[in-house]
Amino acid sequence: MVELARLTLEEVDALAFSVLRASGLSEDHARAIADTVTAAERDDSKSHGLFRIPGYVASVRSGKVTPDAVPEVRELAPAVVQVDGHNGFAPLALRVGREPLAAKAREHGIAALGVTNIYHFAALWPEVTALAEMGLVALAFTSASSFVAPHGGIKPLYGTNPMAFAWPREGRPPLVFDQSSSASARGEIQIHQRDGKPIPEGWAIDAEGNPTTDPTAALEGAQLSFGGHKGAAIALMIELLAGALIGDVFSFEASAMDNRDGGPAIGGELMIAIDPARCIAHGNRQAQLAHAETLFAKILEQDGTRLPSDRRYRARLRTPSEGITIPTALYNELKHLQQSSDTAS
Amino acid sequence: MVELARLTLEEVDALAFSVLRASGLSEDHARAIADTVTAAERDDSKSHGLFRIPGYVASVRSGKVTPDAVPEVRELAPAVVQVDGHNGFAPLALRVGREPLAAKAREHGIAALGVTNIYHFAALWPEVTALAEMGLVALAFTSASSFVAPHGGIKPLYGTNPMAFAWPREGRPPLVFDQSSSASARGEIQIHQRDGKPIPEGWAIDAEGNPTTDPTAALEGAQLSFGGHKGAAIALMIELLAGALIGDVFSFEASAMDNRDGGPAIGGELMIAIDPARCIAHGNRQAQLAHAETLFAKILEQDGTRLPSDRRYRARLRTPSEGITIPTALYNELKHLQQSSDTAS
Repeated sequence: MVELARLTLEEVDALAFSVLRASGLSEDHARAIADTVTAAERDDSKSHGLFRIPGYVASVRSGKVTPDAVPEVRELAPAVVQVDGHNGFAPLALRVGREPLAAKAREHGIAALGVTNIYHFAALWPEVTALAEMGLVALAFTSASSFVAPHGGIKPLYGTNPMAFAWPREGRPPLVFDQSSSASARGEIQIHQRDGKPIPEGWAIDAEGNPTTDPTAALEGAQLSFGGHKGAAIALMIELLAGALIGDVFSFEASAMDNRDGGPAIGGELMIAIDPARCIAHGNRQAQLAHAETLFAKILEQDGTRLPSDRRYRARLRTPSEGITIPTALYNELKHLQQSSDTAS
Repeated sequence: MVELARLTLEEVDALAFSVLRASGLSEDHARAIADTVTAAERDDSKSHGLFRIPGYVASVRSGKVTPDAVPEVRELAPAVVQVDGHNGFAPLALRVGREPLAAKAREHGIAALGVTNIYHFAALWPEVTALAEMGLVALAFTSASSFVAPHGGIKPLYGTNPMAFAWPREGRPPLVFDQSSSASARGEIQIHQRDGKPIPEGWAIDAEGNPTTDPTAALEGAQLSFGGHKGAAIALMIELLAGALIGDVFSFEASAMDNRDGGPAIGGELMIAIDPARCIAHGNRQAQLAHAETLFAKILEQDGTRLPSDRRYRARLRTPSEGITIPTALYNELKHLQQSSDTAS
């Protein structure tokens, strides 16, 4: 049995913010991270909620991440903006880049944002969602530590490399997906290990390259991409887009540099924003978005289907009144960090 | 036993061009299509080679496709160009859009090309390859006839919706992939049906939604996306990018409009081009491309791996001297079309 503590979303936010501040993070960083953590809890996206806070704190304590880094915006081309995170966490750098990216997308029709020198420990969906709420179509790509074998190989090389996509909807939250290019999240394997359960076939291979359902062997071996060589091709594309294209590291380089403090590895993120009204000849944005709705209706008229973001949005209807739960052990750990972090660092 | 005819690449090109011309296609269209067909045969990408020519001819003969359509270029925004194919085949429209797209990508750093009102019957890799040979990173997305069930559903809705990606390499052909978001190409199921062989599990469901290995039942049912819900999310994204975003139809609309003449359905294509040198702060393009090579070397140092485009490039070393083979029956059909097409149309 796992004991649970129930918190309101306001309590989630206040707890996250105070623990992050106590660790020594600047107010701007603590605010940006607390917002993404609270949004994750609100949407029942537990793996990116309060569960992540100890990792953020660990990377401040170890000295790996600069707690008061000030992200720097540079225009690299009329439709390309760069934010140098200067060795800080990602959420603030992404927030700083959002308006310049959106402005460029509206002016030029399409624009790119390269965020470099950041430690990314959050989901991608909050960033693409924010852009879609501004009426833009958005894509995001980031790499991570080296965990996934290239197709045909047996040793970890790629990160779990997520990509996210968001499409704006009139009068409703955007259609969004955010998915890793690995068959499973690393955390899912760790949870199976903790619970002493076998993992499904197809998630991983052991250190000798044999298929395995043993989570410990999987963590010592390599994860597999989703959908075989096609998922691996997407993982490779993401390495290039979030790495060489924007002048940042590949997952294997990030892993080699990392101090294994329990927080994220360094890396980059590419975002692309498109103004849909600038992509049609006689800019009737309303008709364009209504057209997309006909596709969503066609999906939902089939039994058993749902739109990619529906599960999160259903949670969002519930959690502002009902609150959320986390394991009491995690709650106690966070309370402890809240007291001790700045003296221990 | 299948009897084979051997042709040089020059003969492939001349045969394709003359059959297309005989069908009534304008010289520009016949040239653009013959080039993609010859490139496909050169790279041993048989499903997009001479095999496609009867379908092109059928769609001219049926009156569905305008044989002398002149693609029209419009600037929709500083970084967005549109090519209206005016009901013609895709290759010429894409060729016409290539230089404007590349010029915009170089000027603004990133640019988009929406190609509308086209009949797409070719692979995507030739287009992204051409842009990468100009030093750009390129992405392409197109939808198609309605064949693939949405995740959780059982009726066809999405097209097989390919996406392609190309990365430029110094002194070598680009790294390229071009993959459908369905578990298999439709043609692969048709080939299993022709040969009386069961299809692998995971490719399709029958009309009642049950998994099937019977190719006939699969063709009457629905294809499945690759990698479960993640591939389906990519298929949905491609519907939006190549449909509503650029003011073109979704796959289900294209299928409803189609006359089933054996050629392609109408649709749109989105391309994105990025100038890598405009995405880094101190534009050292050579160092940037060299960085990507370190990733490719890391992939290839593992036994059993290859880069996505390697199989095609190995064929390309062989076919200019050895030529290619096609079934004699196809050769005879093409010779027949070459003689009879313009009198029959």
